[in-house]
Amino acid sequence: MPSSQNWLILLAYSGTCYRGWQIQPHDPTIEGLLEHALLELTGQSVKVHGAGRTDAGVHALNYPASFQLDTCFSAEKWRGALNSKLPEDVVVKHVQPMPLEFHARHSAVGKHYRYLIHNCPYADPFGPNSAWWVRRSLDVAAMREAATRLVGIHDFSAFRSVRCASPNPVKELRELQVELDPSQPGRLWIEAEANSFLQHMVRILAGTLVDVGLGKLSPEEVGAILKNRDRTLGGKTAPPHGLYMLRTIYPDGLVEWPPDVLHA
Amino acid sequence: MPSSQNWLILLAYSGTCYRGWQIQPHDPTIEGLLEHALLELTGQSVKVHGAGRTDAGVHALNYPASFQLDTCFSAEKWRGALNSKLPEDVVVKHVQPMPLEFHARHSAVGKHYRYLIHNCPYADPFGPNSAWWVRRSLDVAAMREAATRLVGIHDFSAFRSVRCASPNPVKELRELQVELDPSQPGRLWIEAEANSFLQHMVRILAGTLVDVGLGKLSPEEVGAILKNRDRTLGGKTAPPHGLYMLRTIYPDGLVEWPPDVLHA
Repeated sequence: MPSSQNWLILLAYSGTCYRGWQIQPHDPTIEGLLEHALLELTGQSVKVHGAGRTDAGVHALNYPASFQLDTCFSAEKWRGALNSKLPEDVVVKHVQPMPLEFHARHSAVGKHYRYLIHNCPYADPFGPNSAWWVRRSLDVAAMREAATRLVGIHDFSAFRSVRCASPNPVKELRELQVELDPSQPGRLWIEAEANSFLQHMVRILAGTLVDVGLGKLSPEEVGAILKNRDRTLGGKTAPPHGLYMLRTIYPDGLVEWPPDVLHA
Repeated sequence: MPSSQNWLILLAYSGTCYRGWQIQPHDPTIEGLLEHALLELTGQSVKVHGAGRTDAGVHALNYPASFQLDTCFSAEKWRGALNSKLPEDVVVKHVQPMPLEFHARHSAVGKHYRYLIHNCPYADPFGPNSAWWVRRSLDVAAMREAATRLVGIHDFSAFRSVRCASPNPVKELRELQVELDPSQPGRLWIEAEANSFLQHMVRILAGTLVDVGLGKLSPEEVGAILKNRDRTLGGKTAPPHGLYMLRTIYPDGLVEWPPDVLHA
């Protein structure tokens, strides 16, 4: 029997047409597409381990996944072969062999997301599914002030889905920044990085910061919501189509990405 | 009878679902949408004059159009009213009253287009209809060298559709630049500005420069093609979905745009 090789792949996908990452019996998912492509290419049923679940409609610019398989292609050939079996809205950007102990999710020590907002009285004709359209002008200074109150190690129970099953609501939110797009007025985004996130946490953080930007919540109230750990006090869950997985963080030296592959 | 007011509107649209600007009896077009919206809003049949025809599938970031109508809304109300009657992929960014003699096409003294290319071995999952996907790596230095041979006042017969009915093939190509996107490796665009363009001219210029980038044509050959004025020698017509109307140029002082509205 040939020995097994562990592979790491880096994906980018538009989540619009999919029920998220995780395989589902009846709906199209990214994991389902990949496992089907691998079956077609190799005749083997392979479990693909993604860096984490993404909700239906959520996008990824750099999404790592790993799987073990008897070596049959070079890394470069894997990329071409997989892309030939995938639709155009799901692409494999890079493939590399990894030591057997690497696991796209278990090896991760952090996640970085971006939440994109089109803040303009009129729609973005190119992006109905690629950003949250917020018509009223947002107070970015207030959003930034609120964001600073959320950074750090906290119990984020007020910022997780009521269905979230995670045993530990304490997370280290390492970064929460509100950025204006210098090349496109009316475009802004929220950058969020943590050791890991609770279910819907980035979307609830984004929804809460937008409520602050609209004057519905004050930065002080956001601090109080965090302290009270009560989901019913927090802002709404922002829609999934503004959310992008930007990168997954691995311990220093574990994964060497080629230059330019991890771009946003 | 109320006196007529001349209005200038600035549009952005994704051309993917439309048969171009000009009204057609059976297919959806941007002009058709606008005239229908105006009829619904005012009960009047109004001719909307666009800055120029755009082909099916071509996009616009800033497309001016003008029409005359009895005053019934303020500029700000016009924008909201029109957008409420338009689909999300066609938006009115700005409306302003103009002197009666202004005409979006006749008053123009130049046009500026951008042609977007995704130059990468794998697709852009977010942009199947928003850029031309060219898999093989392009030689940008050669493309730039070829572009310099095309700038100036020339007979561009080699760079127009065989169906082009324009009586004068001499145009002043003021700018033809190849730019790399600093924020996204593998993304490049061609900027083209002229007093006016022949039918398909920007797309044929883009197709020819891509042929140079692929090594199928040399910069010297491009100079010879221009001189020979023979369309059959030029490069292919690049697909419409990479093309964006970026702006229309009017004589100094004729149109005062508000800050930020003309962004790319």
